[in-house]
Amino acid sequence: VTVRKPFRLWMPILILVMALVAGAVVWSLPTIGRTDNQPADQACDVTEVDKEVTLFAENIGKSRVGYGLRRGQASIPGPTMEMTEGECIAVTLKNRSDRKASLHAHGVDYTRASDGTRLTRSCIGPGKDRTYVWQAHTDSLRTDGSVEPGSAGYWHYHDHCRMGEHGTRGIYAGMFGALIVRAPDDPVPDVEPCVLVMIGTTFAFKRAPNTPVCEANLGQRVEFVVITHGDEFHTFHLHGHRWADTRSGALETLDDPSRIIDNKTTGPADSFGFQVIAGERVGPGAWMYHCHVQNHSDLGMSGIFLVKDEEGRITPDAQRALDAFQGGHHH
Amino acid sequence: VTVRKPFRLWMPILILVMALVAGAVVWSLPTIGRTDNQPADQACDVTEVDKEVTLFAENIGKSRVGYGLRRGQASIPGPTMEMTEGECIAVTLKNRSDRKASLHAHGVDYTRASDGTRLTRSCIGPGKDRTYVWQAHTDSLRTDGSVEPGSAGYWHYHDHCRMGEHGTRGIYAGMFGALIVRAPDDPVPDVEPCVLVMIGTTFAFKRAPNTPVCEANLGQRVEFVVITHGDEFHTFHLHGHRWADTRSGALETLDDPSRIIDNKTTGPADSFGFQVIAGERVGPGAWMYHCHVQNHSDLGMSGIFLVKDEEGRITPDAQRALDAFQGGHHH
Amino acid sequence: VTVRKPFRLWMPILILVMALVAGAVVWSLPTIGRTDNQPADQACDVTEVDKEVTLFAENIGKSRVGYGLRRGQASIPGPTMEMTEGECIAVTLKNRSDRKASLHAHGVDYTRASDGTRLTRSCIGPGKDRTYVWQAHTDSLRTDGSVEPGSAGYWHYHDHCRMGEHGTRGIYAGMFGALIVRAPDDPVPDVEPCVLVMIGTTFAFKRAPNTPVCEANLGQRVEFVVITHGDEFHTFHLHGHRWADTRSGALETLDDPSRIIDNKTTGPADSFGFQVIAGERVGPGAWMYHCHVQNHSDLGMSGIFLVKDEEGRITPDAQRALDAFQGGHHH
Repeated sequence: VTVRKPFRLWMPILILVMALVAGAVVWSLPTIGRTDNQPADQACDVTEVDKEVTLFAENIGKSRVGYGLRRGQASIPGPTMEMTEGECIAVTLKNRSDRKASLHAHGVDYTRASDGTRLTRSCIGPGKDRTYVWQAHTDSLRTDGSVEPGSAGYWHYHDHCRMGEHGTRGIYAGMFGALIVRAPDDPVPDVEPCVLVMIGTTFAFKRAPNTPVCEANLGQRVEFVVITHGDEFHTFHLHGHRWADTRSGALETLDDPSRIIDNKTTGPADSFGFQVIAGERVGPGAWMYHCHVQNHSDLGMSGIFLVKDEEGRITPDAQRALDAFQGGHHH
Repeated sequence: VTVRKPFRLWMPILILVMALVAGAVVWSLPTIGRTDNQPADQACDVTEVDKEVTLFAENIGKSRVGYGLRRGQASIPGPTMEMTEGECIAVTLKNRSDRKASLHAHGVDYTRASDGTRLTRSCIGPGKDRTYVWQAHTDSLRTDGSVEPGSAGYWHYHDHCRMGEHGTRGIYAGMFGALIVRAPDDPVPDVEPCVLVMIGTTFAFKRAPNTPVCEANLGQRVEFVVITHGDEFHTFHLHGHRWADTRSGALETLDDPSRIIDNKTTGPADSFGFQVIAGERVGPGAWMYHCHVQNHSDLGMSGIFLVKDEEGRITPDAQRALDAFQGGHHH
Repeated sequence: VTVRKPFRLWMPILILVMALVAGAVVWSLPTIGRTDNQPADQACDVTEVDKEVTLFAENIGKSRVGYGLRRGQASIPGPTMEMTEGECIAVTLKNRSDRKASLHAHGVDYTRASDGTRLTRSCIGPGKDRTYVWQAHTDSLRTDGSVEPGSAGYWHYHDHCRMGEHGTRGIYAGMFGALIVRAPDDPVPDVEPCVLVMIGTTFAFKRAPNTPVCEANLGQRVEFVVITHGDEFHTFHLHGHRWADTRSGALETLDDPSRIIDNKTTGPADSFGFQVIAGERVGPGAWMYHCHVQNHSDLGMSGIFLVKDEEGRITPDAQRALDAFQGGHHH
């Protein structure tokens, strides 16, 4: 006699649950060995951006090309881009220059489509647009206990396409700018960052007395971003102020053993930044910054960090120095 | 009447104890001011080595000389040597090249007999053999409380004897290689280290497209060792990946304030290394590495970091980029 | 009926206390937003110095100018200046050279009157005297919680006035010296610091075998200060010894992740220093230091770190190496 087991409602339910569990296990297998942050192939993409920016690449006169936020406003260096760790931004490049162009960013995450090189087919021709997506992530621990550093840093972006594999013509045309990525707790400066680009024997193709004047009132927190491009090596020196040779330019604790410097060797595509308290312990004045390679400074690679008094007035000494600087150079 | 003191058993015992104490004090005098690690003049010697290696120096064609582990296998760069702190190795150089040769190591301990220079009479002529002994020690505190750093680092070895005081001809012939010293807890890479030597305007005398392809699967831990030789300064740049400017290339803690970089200025005999997770957050692809001195990269100082998918397959995009790189350069 | 309140002694006392409190609040208002250290415009001035030094600038032969502590004792490099954090020193320059001269210091605090530049009108003509005031402050926390680093470091001073804006002629004449600022707890070396200035393809205009011999006994704590000047970049290498790429050249703790190096890229006006234990683990000997740019070392940019035995005797090997070095170079 065969005894037929009675149908029970819980049986298909149990089978369904077991199948779901098994499926979940199988589905999760490929992630073993991955980081616990994000799948390794996933920088953010254009569908999940926090911010959208448009940059125009445009010719400036006969020999220069710059980036600008609006038509006719291209500048050298281009606009300073700022991100905070955790952000994703989409930068749409509208190439209105006469040659191929791109955006190649240092420091941030991007998939190969946003690499901005010929090799990755991410250049665009004149008249074309392309959106580059950059992600800045926070620091975290990987599953193996190692630290994945955050994206914070004083970085930069530049062309990698104009008339060659490496963007040399783009860079020498002026296609570069600063990209500042801040950690959530980083102090912000009181005034616009002063971006200084060392290229050839110039600061962004300017020589003294036409180099940028970085300005602040006594006691304000001032941010410098120094980027090098081209073929030369330089040493950036600032009078009367110093910084730490760290990610932020600051010491994080009193025990931090990092070197304090007022002069730094830097080569092509290096970038660093720091914040100083304007005139701290030394007072207002026209303080020089310059490349300390002697023949570079003698050729005009110098400029002024103008520390005004606490109310923003230029002190008489500083005014006289400014006049001397502007009148006394290369005439 | 003289009273003779009675003999007591404890008297000679006391004298013996006092003598022993005095002797111990005298014996220990020379060590005052020394470290508590080892006598200052004692790197390990050939009698106490943990590992023995033989390196052959051999001519390669008309103008090159390399090091190899077996006859006829000399390569440029030479074999990558690895040590762990605490180890002592004896490297026997068999000079089968046509000129004087030696091994001079950076970073590790060696007595003057293993300095590998003419000055210390530690060169050898053609056909001769010589054993160089290198020690890697762990970090420790000296008796004065200061830290004696361990030997861990991304170091290198090179000739210091071929046709001159400073090994210039040996270096330009190709007589150099990487020496990796690991601390006991350092993570080890999943694939062979990728050693890149910047010399002249080449990577180890190769220009694109013949520069090394560094390969890994998505998610693997990959180690780069970058060594500079010769007369030029360079900036090493890697696309899509970054590292910390520290001993290991990693941050040890989330609080570590060290700079994160993707571009580093480097000069002759500098060496640095780092580990990245291949394609972390950016995915597979043919990622460029190159010198960022523009005329150096334009002359061919660039190569490919090939990040395959997790199963080791080259993605179509990466294959197309590889083809373009190999076909598009300098033809 | 008016009731006149009785006079109470506590009433005027209360009023006085309230006035004092109000006065203190008003008086302290200007310091809000300032650092808690000192007013931002106050480096020490000449009225509050801890130490006074006189330096003479003098011609040496036809083409050189040096600084010296007494007339007729000018040297290249000039006297090594040492300060401790918290100190203020007044350095009176007596310019007995044939051209304008000044003192421009790196690393320390000075108001514009002590900047030592034409721009700040702090040069002096031949025959004139001028007092430059330098302050070295300790580290501290600013009111916003950020760290103001202390002045400790391996710094330097140099002319910024001779025949130009940037002191190029002064520097190439030899007008430079080391300025060591120590934190209160920094270890002090057992022997005089060895100051090595890389300029052109020389160490302070000397080539091998006439470069400085740095000397110490086995086990002594030896301090090196390496300064670069001029137009060239160099890599400083020391045989048999290493240091940390930190402020002091030492690791502060066993956990410090800083890079340990024996070779460092350095450019004009960079300076760094470190202390080693002479011969630690490697023994006595004539250990080479040299620029590792190959054509620089071949041109004579090398010298000897002579580690004698513990009693200060030159070992036979070291003596032989010294003889070879002095006899074998450039004859």
